[in-house]
Amino acid sequence: MRNQPAGGRQRVILEDLQPEIDGGKFPIKRVLGESVTVEVDAFTDGHEALTCILLFRLEGEEEWRSLALLPLANDRWQGGFEVASLGRWRYTVRGWVDPFRTWQRDLAKRLAAGQDLAVDYLIGAELLEETARRADPDAARKLRESAEALRSPLTEEKSRVALDPALLDLAARFPDPETVVSWPRELGVVVDPERARFSAWYEFFPRSAAEEPGRHGTLADAERWLPDIHTMGFDVVYLPPIHPIGSTKRKGPNNALTAGPEDPGSPWAIGAAEGGHTAVHPELGTVEDLRTFVAAARELGIDTALDIAFQCSPDHPWVRDHPQWFRKRPDNTIQYAENPPKKYEDIYPFDFESEDWPALWEALRDVFLFWIEQGVRVFRVDNPHTKPFPFWAWLIPEVKARHPETIFLSEAFTRPKPMYYLAKLGFTQSYNYFPWRNVKWEIEQYFTELTQTPVREFFRPNLWPNTPDILTEYLQHGGRPAFVIRLALAATLGASYGLYGPAFELYEHAARKAGTEEYLDSEKYEIRRWDRDRPDSLAPLIARINRIRRENPALQTNATLRFHGIDNGELVCYSKTTPALDNVMLMIVNLNPHHRHAGWTSLDLDALGLAADQAYEVHDLVSDARYLWQGGRNFVELNPHVLPAHIFRVRRRIRHEQDFEYYT
Amino acid sequence: MRNQPAGGRQRVILEDLQPEIDGGKFPIKRVLGESVTVEVDAFTDGHEALTCILLFRLEGEEEWRSLALLPLANDRWQGGFEVASLGRWRYTVRGWVDPFRTWQRDLAKRLAAGQDLAVDYLIGAELLEETARRADPDAARKLRESAEALRSPLTEEKSRVALDPALLDLAARFPDPETVVSWPRELGVVVDPERARFSAWYEFFPRSAAEEPGRHGTLADAERWLPDIHTMGFDVVYLPPIHPIGSTKRKGPNNALTAGPEDPGSPWAIGAAEGGHTAVHPELGTVEDLRTFVAAARELGIDTALDIAFQCSPDHPWVRDHPQWFRKRPDNTIQYAENPPKKYEDIYPFDFESEDWPALWEALRDVFLFWIEQGVRVFRVDNPHTKPFPFWAWLIPEVKARHPETIFLSEAFTRPKPMYYLAKLGFTQSYNYFPWRNVKWEIEQYFTELTQTPVREFFRPNLWPNTPDILTEYLQHGGRPAFVIRLALAATLGASYGLYGPAFELYEHAARKAGTEEYLDSEKYEIRRWDRDRPDSLAPLIARINRIRRENPALQTNATLRFHGIDNGELVCYSKTTPALDNVMLMIVNLNPHHRHAGWTSLDLDALGLAADQAYEVHDLVSDARYLWQGGRNFVELNPHVLPAHIFRVRRRIRHEQDFEYYT
Repeated sequence: MRNQPAGGRQRVILEDLQPEIDGGKFPIKRVLGESVTVEVDAFTDGHEALTCILLFRLEGEEEWRSLALLPLANDRWQGGFEVASLGRWRYTVRGWVDPFRTWQRDLAKRLAAGQDLAVDYLIGAELLEETARRADPDAARKLRESAEALRSPLTEEKSRVALDPALLDLAARFPDPETVVSWPRELGVVVDPERARFSAWYEFFPRSAAEEPGRHGTLADAERWLPDIHTMGFDVVYLPPIHPIGSTKRKGPNNALTAGPEDPGSPWAIGAAEGGHTAVHPELGTVEDLRTFVAAARELGIDTALDIAFQCSPDHPWVRDHPQWFRKRPDNTIQYAENPPKKYEDIYPFDFESEDWPALWEALRDVFLFWIEQGVRVFRVDNPHTKPFPFWAWLIPEVKARHPETIFLSEAFTRPKPMYYLAKLGFTQSYNYFPWRNVKWEIEQYFTELTQTPVREFFRPNLWPNTPDILTEYLQHGGRPAFVIRLALAATLGASYGLYGPAFELYEHAARKAGTEEYLDSEKYEIRRWDRDRPDSLAPLIARINRIRRENPALQTNATLRFHGIDNGELVCYSKTTPALDNVMLMIVNLNPHHRHAGWTSLDLDALGLAADQAYEVHDLVSDARYLWQGGRNFVELNPHVLPAHIFRVRRRIRHEQDFEYYT
Repeated sequence: MRNQPAGGRQRVILEDLQPEIDGGKFPIKRVLGESVTVEVDAFTDGHEALTCILLFRLEGEEEWRSLALLPLANDRWQGGFEVASLGRWRYTVRGWVDPFRTWQRDLAKRLAAGQDLAVDYLIGAELLEETARRADPDAARKLRESAEALRSPLTEEKSRVALDPALLDLAARFPDPETVVSWPRELGVVVDPERARFSAWYEFFPRSAAEEPGRHGTLADAERWLPDIHTMGFDVVYLPPIHPIGSTKRKGPNNALTAGPEDPGSPWAIGAAEGGHTAVHPELGTVEDLRTFVAAARELGIDTALDIAFQCSPDHPWVRDHPQWFRKRPDNTIQYAENPPKKYEDIYPFDFESEDWPALWEALRDVFLFWIEQGVRVFRVDNPHTKPFPFWAWLIPEVKARHPETIFLSEAFTRPKPMYYLAKLGFTQSYNYFPWRNVKWEIEQYFTELTQTPVREFFRPNLWPNTPDILTEYLQHGGRPAFVIRLALAATLGASYGLYGPAFELYEHAARKAGTEEYLDSEKYEIRRWDRDRPDSLAPLIARINRIRRENPALQTNATLRFHGIDNGELVCYSKTTPALDNVMLMIVNLNPHHRHAGWTSLDLDALGLAADQAYEVHDLVSDARYLWQGGRNFVELNPHVLPAHIFRVRRRIRHEQDFEYYT
């Protein structure tokens, strides 16, 4: 027989296992204690019954743990497991046509129809005896006893034995291996600390932290900002690069091509005589000062995130010590960064394809390991999309195998597909297009894509209304209301969000020139002084919103984000809930920073756990206003000059059996 | 260096290649002369330029043919090839970072910016010299000449050489193999004859074809029906099983459990003393008569489809000669078919897992090969979902490797996933849920799924308003208009459709009892006489509609099906076009067989190739009425008692440069 098929008895078809990214090429992401819900299509020819199981284990464990998948509708099966420790987990599924399950199911129907079952009991006994030959001794004994009972003349006893669910469970433990179909791949889960999912970031430049005007701030000065940052409710503080800054081709204020002698330069021009990626800029302090800073932050429950920018100023020690790590031009000069016709001569990119690439890649990995040694466990990685993907595919698992708690934030403001690809390769969180999603349809479309499609399994958005590079036109021209709107959106659309802090609190909004998103007098090129005590600072509002996020677990996840209808194109309405619906948050934001807008909601009451005939309270946790609503259609009006957003906690009134009501 | 990555220089990422079914596990389907349009995401880190190519070949060819993929937007690339012969084709894609393409693109920008290019020309020369080392001698010579020109002092000559597109094409033929990324799989295309896509089927029982009342019809009688079937415009005539019929437990009229001595039995109870699956029922004639019938049909351009039902009556010779092919019960009887508690004791299913399964499977394959020998090339396979999937996965390629023109129609009225899976395994066409899609939303939803999702790549629906087993409630209660509506839908929604003929033409609509879809006095269990000359027969309308299908290529494909808005829930509106939009068909059907309905369309003018400001003619090819329309909003009214459907040909008026107008 030509082309005789292997596995002619493997009759279960397994299809469309979810979650599975790109045919199992990449792991999904979870945080500690979350669950993985697995679904798969399983079916066979004809009408026989299946058994399907889910297998899972922590990587390195010898034995699979297993549980039965349960059938939903339409040949879909489902099961789930909890990831109870950091690191990498694996899962897969198996299924087989189960003759004893089929027999038991059919016997019940035959019994109900009052048919003669003499032959059927004999068939059942044969099935159990066959199963016993594959079973362990203890199980085999029980299976043979049951088979004997099915062969006995006592009819009533036979039907009791035959329909016993425990007997089915026992028999299902010993399928005929020739009939078992395994999903062809084992799939991975990367389990991160909870902060990977839920975090509030605050970025500032330590060199601007001195109290006295004119002095270069130090890490010790920066440390004195921490209590205020803690009061505002942030749990990650992110410092731009803290390394020595090159002087060759140093940039001056407002990105000028030449710098004056007093100009401090851009922290992203990394490396000088004093050292490179593992050194601290002498004017900021020492590595020991950084350790002190990290420890002080940790005391307040704050993680310190360092900026890892893999590029060198011409003065970086590696340029002298490892010239082979850079690309040479035919005139023997080193290739500077460029995006033709633009040139960036203050920066040398690495040549990741250099003949000496293994040493280069290891040196770059060791940069992360060095700072992890100093207590850092969070990294914001600059422009990862301009380094080869194979490099990140190697580096991130290298680091996480040793330190599974490490968090990598990808700063890849690039096209959608490379941005997603970096997340697939292992970046824990990602910058994204939030800054430029300002009108209703694009907010709804983008956050539905991020949270309700397979993207949710690998891409964790971190929402930044501004960064030192991004002062959006919306913020430039929308006044204080624009900042409040973007804050409310970032903090409630995203379980993780961040602010480029002092500039945001004080709604710095002057651009260097029209049509650019660069700040005027950007802190990237000069030391700034910030009047953080200004009475109109947004700090108190930020503190309030961060407290609402901490107190309401619905806001700590993106998985349950749902948009609701509202009949005004300037108003956006969305909810987040806990899976058990015991914390339900409803947000309504006026996206127009200039004008008052009103509208009628059409809420998806099921998503909110509400019945159509029950009244419920919406409690604005920012303004403390409370409204009694009922059904899906309710009126709202938002004046951006007062408060452009409702952040409602929805309190359902539950009708109990005893017929009294209370608020959850 | 632990875990050193392989392919650190393979920097192109290839993702989401389409079409690809289940990670390449199954081939897509095409018919002769169609094209395969391939798309893939391709991108790299940074800003370098890529070259991506599509490779394709007929299976068995040594060398790939190749062509360049072209970038669309958003990192998506596209290319296509025509499948010019029957059988199996293969395709895949490759991509690499292309240094010379990058250099040429950047040089153009630098030239435009007026930069000093001395070093850049040297870099280009080096790239060409490196490429020359991989090239064939002739190409190498040309590449070196160009390199020399770039090193020459003649500036003008240099830029001409540098920007030459032919030089780029030449260099792109010799990429550095270390940098080439291949899609990890080769993907398959099964190329079928055109009839696999576009066909009109007519089913009838030869035993009812005798002219004299009371006589058992023969294949020779059936042959005399062929001219009428041809006149009606059908190109496949499908005969229920023509084999000897068992007498043990034979069913009587209306599926009675016992048959009288004159009752002919069900043709699906296959096998008697006279033979089994390769014999012809003596009352129908001989194998030679079948050959004559097939040849006569072919003369008229009609294919003969046989019904292959893999099951045996207890009298089938195989029951005696190969008892091991059937399942034994403990009381030594043979297991009959059943769906507990229902029993079908006139039928024995095969035991596909029998110890002797290779011989069984080969015997079943030989059934197909036997009838192919007799000239048959189309098979309607009965209940394939009750036979193991591995069997079909083996059988269909076995047959098509020898006879690639064979068409298999799957009769799997089962759940959606097994139904689709059989199509993935190789069934050429499939019965589907069309009979039960009667209201607007379910028609729109289902046919969008079939034609606008990946399902279209492997599942070719064949639309049957009725079959001998399916007399829908819609047809039972909707009168003659219901038959016209279902005919119009089947013939225009589906490039392939079929009728259980005489019963349809004469709108037979009496059910055996309320709540069933079985015909009263079903032809499955008795010989019927049909008055095909009845003046109210639908035959002339069927002939007209089949002629419209033949004359309008838009109706010969499902790929371009689009639904349009119409503001009446009883009216459905959809179009089909040729890819070039030179044949545009627009259908509007009143789904309510009782009442007149009217509404206003909202047409997607782009899909119809129409401009908003141009008038166009819609010409009803059934009634010959013509209307002048403009824009998307037009009024229609359909009276089901006159004609419930418009089948419009849309004739655009094209404004030429010369400013005259004509109809296409």
